[in-house]
Amino acid sequence: MAISKSTIKYLRSLSLKKFRQKYNNFIVEGDKMARELLTGQPGRVVALYALGSWLEQAGRELALPKEKAFIVDEQELAKISNLSTPNQVLAVVSMPEDRVEEEPLRKGLSLFLDGIQDPGNFGTILRIADWFGISFVLCSPTCVDPYNPKAIQASMGAFLRVKVVEQSLENLCLLAPGLPVYGAVMDGENVFRASLSAEGIIVIGNEGNGISAAAAGLLNRRIAIPAAAHGGAESLNAAVAAGIICAVFRNRM
Amino acid sequence: MAISKSTIKYLRSLSLKKFRQKYNNFIVEGDKMARELLTGQPGRVVALYALGSWLEQAGRELALPKEKAFIVDEQELAKISNLSTPNQVLAVVSMPEDRVEEEPLRKGLSLFLDGIQDPGNFGTILRIADWFGISFVLCSPTCVDPYNPKAIQASMGAFLRVKVVEQSLENLCLLAPGLPVYGAVMDGENVFRASLSAEGIIVIGNEGNGISAAAAGLLNRRIAIPAAAHGGAESLNAAVAAGIICAVFRNRM
Repeated sequence: MAISKSTIKYLRSLSLKKFRQKYNNFIVEGDKMARELLTGQPGRVVALYALGSWLEQAGRELALPKEKAFIVDEQELAKISNLSTPNQVLAVVSMPEDRVEEEPLRKGLSLFLDGIQDPGNFGTILRIADWFGISFVLCSPTCVDPYNPKAIQASMGAFLRVKVVEQSLENLCLLAPGLPVYGAVMDGENVFRASLSAEGIIVIGNEGNGISAAAAGLLNRRIAIPAAAHGGAESLNAAVAAGIICAVFRNRM
Repeated sequence: MAISKSTIKYLRSLSLKKFRQKYNNFIVEGDKMARELLTGQPGRVVALYALGSWLEQAGRELALPKEKAFIVDEQELAKISNLSTPNQVLAVVSMPEDRVEEEPLRKGLSLFLDGIQDPGNFGTILRIADWFGISFVLCSPTCVDPYNPKAIQASMGAFLRVKVVEQSLENLCLLAPGLPVYGAVMDGENVFRASLSAEGIIVIGNEGNGISAAAAGLLNRRIAIPAAAHGGAESLNAAVAAGIICAVFRNRM
């Protein structure tokens, strides 16, 4: 079965934020994430475009929404895929309506991403949050779109479990007054020696410029990952820094 | 001044490992890394292709190898660049002749990358090593080429300071018998609770498959980064895992 030109055009348009927002849909690709999606949150699948062989195999192993599943050939898949090597199946998924409320925010650790620009970093940080059981990844409007195909791909399915909410840090501080706000900075207290609470918001800044002036004014605690005295790098990658800080928080409690 | 077609062809060929090895040269791009290179290791610069404005500005601030510096215009730079947004300057750099010997290996921590495939991960791990003052990043022949343009770019200049040597783990173990070999695995001892030595080799496995069977047989210690009981991710990104483990080693000594 061939898919129409207008469907191809629509699917390709979802690589752009403007159209993702217009249709409230985004793209998830590949065997592994498609299976996670169909198993964990089948209700969010709007449509599934897959090779016949994949549909046959997957249909034996899990429940497929048959009326939403369409067979494509490899040429068609290459046309609609955002991957350099298309991987058997592409799903159109509806965006969740995640919100953040005071009580869950106060109950645990959250990450706040302040202008993370690289989609790979964004997705990798979602994966870190998922690993360490951090429920909320909050992000400034200056971040890359969380539904950017590269961010979704790098998250390795974490977008299915971690709640991502765009919100200013100022609003979060108004929502939960007194909640500790930690910032990852170059000249802060050594995170390995600091006393850390089990609840709070950890702010990770932009790749090149760090935490914005607006967010810096809202920090209660400034923490840092110490470099070796003879180390040469000026900084760590933002996702690596987020990973180290989350690991230390989770292992100091 | 225009550059010749054969020069363009030559420079473009350096995006491929085959030609990098043939000529023993690789490409470094962008204002920041070019300045680090010219300041720290000017002798390794084979040629410099830059916008006139960059040469003028940089020439005022640091010593340029004039006989090796060539002016290109933006169209020419776009032709020879590996970046989606070319950044003012591109340098051809000679590969170092790094070797690993017993004494320096015994004196500190080294990383061994066992089949890291993603150039971004490879470069990010070099940057981690640089930050934590780890002198050697050793790598299996199954890794991505360390001089892949994306690896160099992601290293943010760390390739200038960290020694990268392709070597089998077996040979390293023969070179320094008795040196502890730690492996990052899913089911190891919690790295935050483990006793860690100040010397040794830390093995980081492939993104999808982890540590190879050959390398696994050479590990003395198996360490892991504990996930949250309610965490959902199956694994962490390889560079993030390397960052967490290096951070813990550096802060337990």
